[in-house]
Amino acid sequence: MKKMVMSVLVVNTAGVLSRVAGLFSRRNYNIDSLTVSETENPKFSKMTIVVTGDDEVLEQIKKQVAKLEDVQDITILKDGKSVCRELVLIKVAAGPEQRQQVMAVTNIFRAKIVDVAEDSLMIELTGNQAKLEAFIGLLKGFEVKELVRTGITGLSRGSADMLAGEFD
Amino acid sequence: MKKMVMSVLVVNTAGVLSRVAGLFSRRNYNIDSLTVSETENPKFSKMTIVVTGDDEVLEQIKKQVAKLEDVQDITILKDGKSVCRELVLIKVAAGPEQRQQVMAVTNIFRAKIVDVAEDSLMIELTGNQAKLEAFIGLLKGFEVKELVRTGITGLSRGSADMLAGEFD
Repeated sequence: MKKMVMSVLVVNTAGVLSRVAGLFSRRNYNIDSLTVSETENPKFSKMTIVVTGDDEVLEQIKKQVAKLEDVQDITILKDGKSVCRELVLIKVAAGPEQRQQVMAVTNIFRAKIVDVAEDSLMIELTGNQAKLEAFIGLLKGFEVKELVRTGITGLSRGSADMLAGEFD
Repeated sequence: MKKMVMSVLVVNTAGVLSRVAGLFSRRNYNIDSLTVSETENPKFSKMTIVVTGDDEVLEQIKKQVAKLEDVQDITILKDGKSVCRELVLIKVAAGPEQRQQVMAVTNIFRAKIVDVAEDSLMIELTGNQAKLEAFIGLLKGFEVKELVRTGITGLSRGSADMLAGEFD
């Protein structure tokens, strides 16, 4: 099983999200994450869809998505040749005694505390999926009250084969 | 016209995204942004949907969404009582001469340069919508080659009426 990140340029029409989502549910393709956004051009939206499957299924998905009338272009965002990012907000139960411990984890990941209440902290973190998973994993030692993620979005690098790595 | 941010807890089934998106497109409700994500509980997903309309339309949307079988709970995320965040990646054309200028704007917003190529820079910024719009506005002085956003996600504050403001 492999993970594929597709960046799909679609014409900005009313039903486009429902048509793309419908294709995936009819064919039982499993969406790990989907984001839809405006682009630099108001005529088009860009969907970033993360799917998991074997080579055959992933090839099928690409072909089926490409067939949709709204779809203008598909780019597969590959590791190293693209930058993929996600944002997560997590509300952790933390009274005065646990606050220091949660803040220590937050500092290590350079995450941000965005809200403090008597019995909870809300933390914002952005990064690639590995970073988010590691952070969420560490917080499992505390009581996670609420958690939302945006899903992954990404762009291909300016120069895919340059030496400079990803800055983080 | 008002903007409403709905946080919708749905059962994590295959067709749920397509059903929710279908409702909006059939009724011609305009989605400004939609994110869908796992939550702290694997049985449920959370959709954060931003819609614009007059009071009557917004009330209608709430009722229609609440009627969907997959929908367990709807929370309206209000300014001041919630934290809403979005992530944007922007690739800006910038040769050696423009790099300094783009970096100046990036620093002011505490955004991050995540990729550098000979003729472009890629910038990552997270924040509330006002911050993102201001940043994108300032970059309009440069040539924006590509832009993607995750769409807004959010959580209600731990203590809605506490004194502590939003840290940013």
